[in-house]
Amino acid sequence: MAPSARIEHKSSTMMDIPVIGTLPVGPRNAITDVAGVTVGHCTLADGACQTGVTVIRPHAGNVYREKVPAAATVLNGFGKSIGLVQVDELGVMETPIALTNTFSVGALAQAQIRAAIAENPEIGRAWPTVNPLVFECNDGYLNDIQAMAVQGMHYDSALAAASVDVAQGAVGAGRGMSSFGVKGGIGTASRIAGGYTVGALVLSNFGTPDSLIYGGRLLGAALAGQLRQEIVPEKGSIIMIVATDAPLDARQLGRLSLRAGAGLARTGSVFGHGSGDIALAFSTAYTVPHLADVPMPAVQMVHETRLDPLFRAAADSVEQAIVNALWHGETVHGRDGHTRRALRELLQELMA
Amino acid sequence: MAPSARIEHKSSTMMDIPVIGTLPVGPRNAITDVAGVTVGHCTLADGACQTGVTVIRPHAGNVYREKVPAAATVLNGFGKSIGLVQVDELGVMETPIALTNTFSVGALAQAQIRAAIAENPEIGRAWPTVNPLVFECNDGYLNDIQAMAVQGMHYDSALAAASVDVAQGAVGAGRGMSSFGVKGGIGTASRIAGGYTVGALVLSNFGTPDSLIYGGRLLGAALAGQLRQEIVPEKGSIIMIVATDAPLDARQLGRLSLRAGAGLARTGSVFGHGSGDIALAFSTAYTVPHLADVPMPAVQMVHETRLDPLFRAAADSVEQAIVNALWHGETVHGRDGHTRRALRELLQELMA
Amino acid sequence: MAPSARIEHKSSTMMDIPVIGTLPVGPRNAITDVAGVTVGHCTLADGACQTGVTVIRPHAGNVYREKVPAAATVLNGFGKSIGLVQVDELGVMETPIALTNTFSVGALAQAQIRAAIAENPEIGRAWPTVNPLVFECNDGYLNDIQAMAVQGMHYDSALAAASVDVAQGAVGAGRGMSSFGVKGGIGTASRIAGGYTVGALVLSNFGTPDSLIYGGRLLGAALAGQLRQEIVPEKGSIIMIVATDAPLDARQLGRLSLRAGAGLARTGSVFGHGSGDIALAFSTAYTVPHLADVPMPAVQMVHETRLDPLFRAAADSVEQAIVNALWHGETVHGRDGHTRRALRELLQELMA
Amino acid sequence: MAPSARIEHKSSTMMDIPVIGTLPVGPRNAITDVAGVTVGHCTLADGACQTGVTVIRPHAGNVYREKVPAAATVLNGFGKSIGLVQVDELGVMETPIALTNTFSVGALAQAQIRAAIAENPEIGRAWPTVNPLVFECNDGYLNDIQAMAVQGMHYDSALAAASVDVAQGAVGAGRGMSSFGVKGGIGTASRIAGGYTVGALVLSNFGTPDSLIYGGRLLGAALAGQLRQEIVPEKGSIIMIVATDAPLDARQLGRLSLRAGAGLARTGSVFGHGSGDIALAFSTAYTVPHLADVPMPAVQMVHETRLDPLFRAAADSVEQAIVNALWHGETVHGRDGHTRRALRELLQELMA
Repeated sequence: MAPSARIEHKSSTMMDIPVIGTLPVGPRNAITDVAGVTVGHCTLADGACQTGVTVIRPHAGNVYREKVPAAATVLNGFGKSIGLVQVDELGVMETPIALTNTFSVGALAQAQIRAAIAENPEIGRAWPTVNPLVFECNDGYLNDIQAMAVQGMHYDSALAAASVDVAQGAVGAGRGMSSFGVKGGIGTASRIAGGYTVGALVLSNFGTPDSLIYGGRLLGAALAGQLRQEIVPEKGSIIMIVATDAPLDARQLGRLSLRAGAGLARTGSVFGHGSGDIALAFSTAYTVPHLADVPMPAVQMVHETRLDPLFRAAADSVEQAIVNALWHGETVHGRDGHTRRALRELLQELMA
Repeated sequence: MAPSARIEHKSSTMMDIPVIGTLPVGPRNAITDVAGVTVGHCTLADGACQTGVTVIRPHAGNVYREKVPAAATVLNGFGKSIGLVQVDELGVMETPIALTNTFSVGALAQAQIRAAIAENPEIGRAWPTVNPLVFECNDGYLNDIQAMAVQGMHYDSALAAASVDVAQGAVGAGRGMSSFGVKGGIGTASRIAGGYTVGALVLSNFGTPDSLIYGGRLLGAALAGQLRQEIVPEKGSIIMIVATDAPLDARQLGRLSLRAGAGLARTGSVFGHGSGDIALAFSTAYTVPHLADVPMPAVQMVHETRLDPLFRAAADSVEQAIVNALWHGETVHGRDGHTRRALRELLQELMA
Repeated sequence: MAPSARIEHKSSTMMDIPVIGTLPVGPRNAITDVAGVTVGHCTLADGACQTGVTVIRPHAGNVYREKVPAAATVLNGFGKSIGLVQVDELGVMETPIALTNTFSVGALAQAQIRAAIAENPEIGRAWPTVNPLVFECNDGYLNDIQAMAVQGMHYDSALAAASVDVAQGAVGAGRGMSSFGVKGGIGTASRIAGGYTVGALVLSNFGTPDSLIYGGRLLGAALAGQLRQEIVPEKGSIIMIVATDAPLDARQLGRLSLRAGAGLARTGSVFGHGSGDIALAFSTAYTVPHLADVPMPAVQMVHETRLDPLFRAAADSVEQAIVNALWHGETVHGRDGHTRRALRELLQELMA
Repeated sequence: MAPSARIEHKSSTMMDIPVIGTLPVGPRNAITDVAGVTVGHCTLADGACQTGVTVIRPHAGNVYREKVPAAATVLNGFGKSIGLVQVDELGVMETPIALTNTFSVGALAQAQIRAAIAENPEIGRAWPTVNPLVFECNDGYLNDIQAMAVQGMHYDSALAAASVDVAQGAVGAGRGMSSFGVKGGIGTASRIAGGYTVGALVLSNFGTPDSLIYGGRLLGAALAGQLRQEIVPEKGSIIMIVATDAPLDARQLGRLSLRAGAGLARTGSVFGHGSGDIALAFSTAYTVPHLADVPMPAVQMVHETRLDPLFRAAADSVEQAIVNALWHGETVHGRDGHTRRALRELLQELMA
């Protein structure tokens, strides 16, 4: 029997970046292949401070006045995000998405409120509130998280830096993150399916070494052996943001967000107890006006039976984004002599 | 036909505080009738700054090390709380509950993290995280909410002030809150049922004048007439905290928390679109150890068929707590010449 | 102080049917005021067999080919409905709604499948499945429910009888139902709000006598006194179907369905442990085609901030429908000498 | 680099049954390794009738009187099960679990009610109701599902046949099921972890040929090529039942049930739109009495931080059970000349 092309490919090119699935890849292989989406980082890397902020802007306009349809799935709720209660109820997000470390959610929520007021001075007056949307993973192995170094200005800086070029690995919120006992962080990918683009960006901070499936390859036992001295129990998390230009309503976006879990599982995750595994999906196909006197959009949503290609694209993009986060990981030294090594260094040692 | 005692009572004593239902009332008629529970306020009242913090401590010990079984119901998710994702997943809370205004959730989340670290220095180190638990309503009509005046120290102050005596009305987080177009704020009540105590504390900031049902009495039309000049569309919220000493697991506490909605509806609420209507219930009957090597408790939970008295006690306590918040409301003057009058003043005018 | 019009009205006309709230009432004061909706009953009333079937058709066409947007809220899940899993996932219903007794859900599910195949022979072939949608309450006090007398033909009969004229009280699925210790059953009502019509139909089988609030009036104590010999613990349920012609998507319909709970609570319910309290809302404003090659509708949904009138209309319609079910209740004698008396008879005795 | 043992193993023994993961396997590698659990089949295989019933008994006693803690996760709700509403609310199941084809849920629900009454004549009298629990997949490709051949007696027969020996493949409810374009059906497996046993039984009817990952091996492209003429779009489903002897409460069982999705995803599923993907987990460690005057159990639940091994065991058991269903699949000829071939036949052709 002929082994599948994918396995064959990987056998011969262990150091290449594995390619997940068979769907066409977007031009940037990034969440920014979904037109209008931009990503910015602010990285703090100085001694025991190894952390940062990543911001995803769903469109270039005023997100409060032109809200973005969105929905989330909590695969494992060991997490401290803010904003999901309202997203669940109203099916929209009204700020950019912020990613950071666990103890900085509050600081970024305040920063998002201030930024929203700066853009819309009626907030807190005629327009009573705004819903901050901040997700987190715990970078406390490398980062002195007790220092709570992230400030509002770092949000502003990441927001201002947003562009279609997305740096991956130990950048932004990913600076101090770990996955599978090696360096994790930011990864992104995209796929084309059903006439639409689906992109994913992950903040990857989950996984024990022994569980790693890397591009379909069971590397866990080998990696765990190689990392003998460094293993700590999983206390991770992963945030998975899925964007699409397909016209989906909030219910359909909820379905899409769940499929991030399929991609996550294929990397070896069983949605561990201590891991906050949360996915959010949004659509750029239309916006929902803040003001009731602006006409609501009249959108032909995708027929339910045509969602399967998008589901596959979401799963594949998320798995690819995790692989990319690992592949782009560089060795980082953090607090108290802690180090997370680059997966590629370890793969080279394994192959030697 | 003999009208029911309750209607008769109210007809004759309009200025008395209405008594909800027929269950026995606890000695303090407060959430602190549930043994171990204490409540503290920090009130900010100076010109345009009319806001504050209220803290509910479920027990006097280290809540992180001795976690408290809890569950929540989101009746209407137009709200910006933090902490519910993890409560839903793990069925426990691990900090005191903080209540404040909408734009101060982040500041209090940071304060809760700092307080937890101060008490448990391993947090952010060997014990990776802590889950802040902060709820909010929007006091922006009276309070200059854009100023974001609440600071971490106000959390510490409210926490330090916690006692079994609970001030009601325009205090703590309730300082700037409005309900039914009049002064809202903090209310509390308790009932004895099924051999257990159930207590409720509400942060009441919901309701349009025309919808008020006050102790079973349809006062809406009269109140709306009286308030003609002051009515603004509902942009409120209500947080309803239910405590009990009954041994309930998280699933049962979720059931209990939903019954807060029955009490809320009986005051005239239809869980309005713009109102974040959230209930959380916790039990003081046992705790769940943080450390796996501390034995788990072996608790005989209440048999499911014995929950109805507790359900009624939760609904009645919440309705009573709302009534109490209104009854204790004093007239408050806030930002930009805004005023919320005391319901009792208006009732006296109506009766004159 | 002038008591509210509503209380005054009821004081003077105890035997009249109470009118809930202040919104305009639809021409039939029935769910069939939502254009296209029809209701049919099949009543089985013979000795110990006191049960039946009620069917709600959302439109006159082929519901499988032209699916109806829908969503449900389970307030208390002590119930045995079939079909909600798929409604939750896909946001549509694809059969009429069937109501019956608890032990007949399976028989009606089979009947719905057969009826759907008869209309669409491709079901079970090219179109693999159909999702039956059957709700139930337990009429076992009056009806010999163990006999499982309801058959598929009774579904067909109720479906064929569907019209805009809705009989209320001890008819159809309501034949054997009890509420508050007296005769319950089918009730319906409608309200006009926000430029749209909202209608409700309930199958009312919940409530202990002492908890009754009837049109805002606390009748519980009086009713319980009058019924001394007949009280049994609550083992009831209520199904609340809400229809509207407002263009709402499934998420919004889910919000609408929850507001049925506000109307229910105002009748004295605390969503008792043993009561399956389930609400489903659907919209007739558009349909979703079964086939992917039929164009999806492009619908301007109602702006979220305009939902409050619809929420109130749903709550008021449901409360009114419960009141109507009670008011139309006639005394029914059932199995083993069991009797449920008409509320109006008891009210007359109370007033005498 | 040394490839992992698992890949190496499979390369050399393509026809052997792949072994998933590294956890110890129970003595029977079946759900019946969880002490007390038994499984029975009733198979209907005659021409166009290729269907059946499978029953899982959680213990040998009266399940109504000694209810079993349980919880479910709906990964994709394109399904017609009955019973989940009450399981979600009360956290227990009170009948055995029945599996069958989509159009036979109603017949089995009726059969379960009759069986429960036969065992407990008070049901429908003093004890008002019983909650049937029936899951389904659509076997309409092989089976003439429109004929609705399954009757109540087939439930009784499967129940009577329950034993610790579990036949796999085209038996019971699995008789007519398909997966990945080949024969699916019943599979079971177990793992030992954390001092407890976790077992799974699946009714496997999902998957398009191109998506198959078989024991970690990407066989999709090869299988799709081989099956060229036979591929139909996915209209499947999978039911995943997880049993454990670990003392878990309903909330924890809900967490466990979700991990079935991780095992499912590793076989190539992205929880396709048309696939009803539902998991239910139950514990045999204790029971919950029907009667309130029987003392509730006082159980030390597993500490949350000790769940990870159980999570992995659930995921691995489910993946293994799916692999086993495929491996045990025999070629079946059904209605209208339809055939599903055994995967092993196709693998042999591929290797030739």
